[in-house]
Amino acid sequence: MPNLVPPIMTKQDVIAYKSRIKQAMWDEEFTPYMTLFFHDGLTREILEDIKDEILAIKLYPAGITTNSEWGVESIDINKLGHIFQAMSDFGIPLCVHGETDGFVMDREKEFGAVYELLASNFPDLKIIMEHITTADSVALLDKYPNLYATITLHHLYITLDDVAGGMLQPHLFCKPIAKRYEDRAALLQVALAAHPKVMFGSDSAPHPQHAKECSGCAAGVFTAPIALQMLAMLFEKHNKLDNLQKFVSDNARGIYNIKTIEKEIILVKEEFKVPEIYGTVVPFNAGNIIDWKIA
Amino acid sequence: MPNLVPPIMTKQDVIAYKSRIKQAMWDEEFTPYMTLFFHDGLTREILEDIKDEILAIKLYPAGITTNSEWGVESIDINKLGHIFQAMSDFGIPLCVHGETDGFVMDREKEFGAVYELLASNFPDLKIIMEHITTADSVALLDKYPNLYATITLHHLYITLDDVAGGMLQPHLFCKPIAKRYEDRAALLQVALAAHPKVMFGSDSAPHPQHAKECSGCAAGVFTAPIALQMLAMLFEKHNKLDNLQKFVSDNARGIYNIKTIEKEIILVKEEFKVPEIYGTVVPFNAGNIIDWKIA
Repeated sequence: MPNLVPPIMTKQDVIAYKSRIKQAMWDEEFTPYMTLFFHDGLTREILEDIKDEILAIKLYPAGITTNSEWGVESIDINKLGHIFQAMSDFGIPLCVHGETDGFVMDREKEFGAVYELLASNFPDLKIIMEHITTADSVALLDKYPNLYATITLHHLYITLDDVAGGMLQPHLFCKPIAKRYEDRAALLQVALAAHPKVMFGSDSAPHPQHAKECSGCAAGVFTAPIALQMLAMLFEKHNKLDNLQKFVSDNARGIYNIKTIEKEIILVKEEFKVPEIYGTVVPFNAGNIIDWKIA
Repeated sequence: MPNLVPPIMTKQDVIAYKSRIKQAMWDEEFTPYMTLFFHDGLTREILEDIKDEILAIKLYPAGITTNSEWGVESIDINKLGHIFQAMSDFGIPLCVHGETDGFVMDREKEFGAVYELLASNFPDLKIIMEHITTADSVALLDKYPNLYATITLHHLYITLDDVAGGMLQPHLFCKPIAKRYEDRAALLQVALAAHPKVMFGSDSAPHPQHAKECSGCAAGVFTAPIALQMLAMLFEKHNKLDNLQKFVSDNARGIYNIKTIEKEIILVKEEFKVPEIYGTVVPFNAGNIIDWKIA
């Protein structure tokens, strides 16, 4: 989701936000990878000026998720094609929240046609389908060489049955909404195989408890503190631990051409009870025991 | 949903509960129509003994909705057929919460096979498909002469998009969950036409606010105080006000062979603001203005 209100729309915004992030970090070597919010005012000149400050540009259809009202009303190639072409020329990847404004279970599937249009019209533009949730999106990966995808932790674990099949679980409510068992199976298959065009993307959303347990609950699942541990559980369960490093890091480094950073996170197989709450935020799998922890 | 814990399973339960209801009513002429909870301990002798005390028997597959754990594990005609046959012989209708334990959006559709099995094996048993939510269920009405249905207010108004398409709305969460636009259209069509095999059934569920706005929200929508008014709005909008009386009363009287009771509820076209809350219960359409009220 677009985390900032208003979003990061200019070079000045990017530089100022990068500086805020660095000041907030205890780790001085932390390097934030910045993205720009896609809008129809972008030009080849602006992109040329900004290209060294950003890793990618993120496109949100307007009104699709939290704070997306500044997004693109309609992805019209006649109107926006010059921007996609300039991004392609400068090697700036396009990240997309791929949903239409259709029926909630069909939005991502319907958006497939837009992915196909973009992928075929701009074959040198790297397009990342963010947080995919359907078997249809998985199928697109092998159809177009320039389509890539991220997958969240929670979409590897849950289906709509977990959200609304028993009691309604607002802490599992997110956009795109969790789908069917066959969709989760397709996501799991490419994640566990560390398909080279697939990367882990947490899409972790720290909404406070009062914004989740209320009469109009915000979309998003808070997974950041336990994402790597629960991925380790999942990959171990399927005897694919050897692929975890590729899924969470190597594939993304390749896709984004990021130089290797010498940094390690060591996971150990040891029981850990997920806290019921982090500050005001209820995490995914709150209160349950998981069998991996960060050393 | 089965409202009582434990449910009404014997003649003594029926008589005692009927007495409690009558004592709680300000209207001394109020006649509660009693139902028995279907269970595999029922026999022809029990049914013969109880038949004049009840209007129908309600069957819940175990674990499907609130308090349904006493329900039937599997609807096996070899095992339960003698009960259905006795009900048929004594003219006791069977009301069913028709969902399997499958994927939440498919449960009612999957249950269609059970309705077909029951309807074809017991052609003289009146079977009421309670609170139907799909076009598939509507289609069954005209396939089997002994299948009938109820439809709630909320399933005529909402789809899954209202529950989870924007912010998550726990006050619109119910079982069976609201479905697709084409399902709602099919329900609307038979309701507005006052299809003679279709009756209004409110399935109104007064869960307190704390059980809805929380980390595990109970299923059910509270519509009782505004159901007739909002049905009037809907029927008026579609120029079908003439059919409202049939949908909310006449059809059910015919299906259940209930003698006409001389009682009127007068609806007037006058603005009414739905309260934000009734006691501790947030109603459907809370805080909004509707244009009909009860005189």
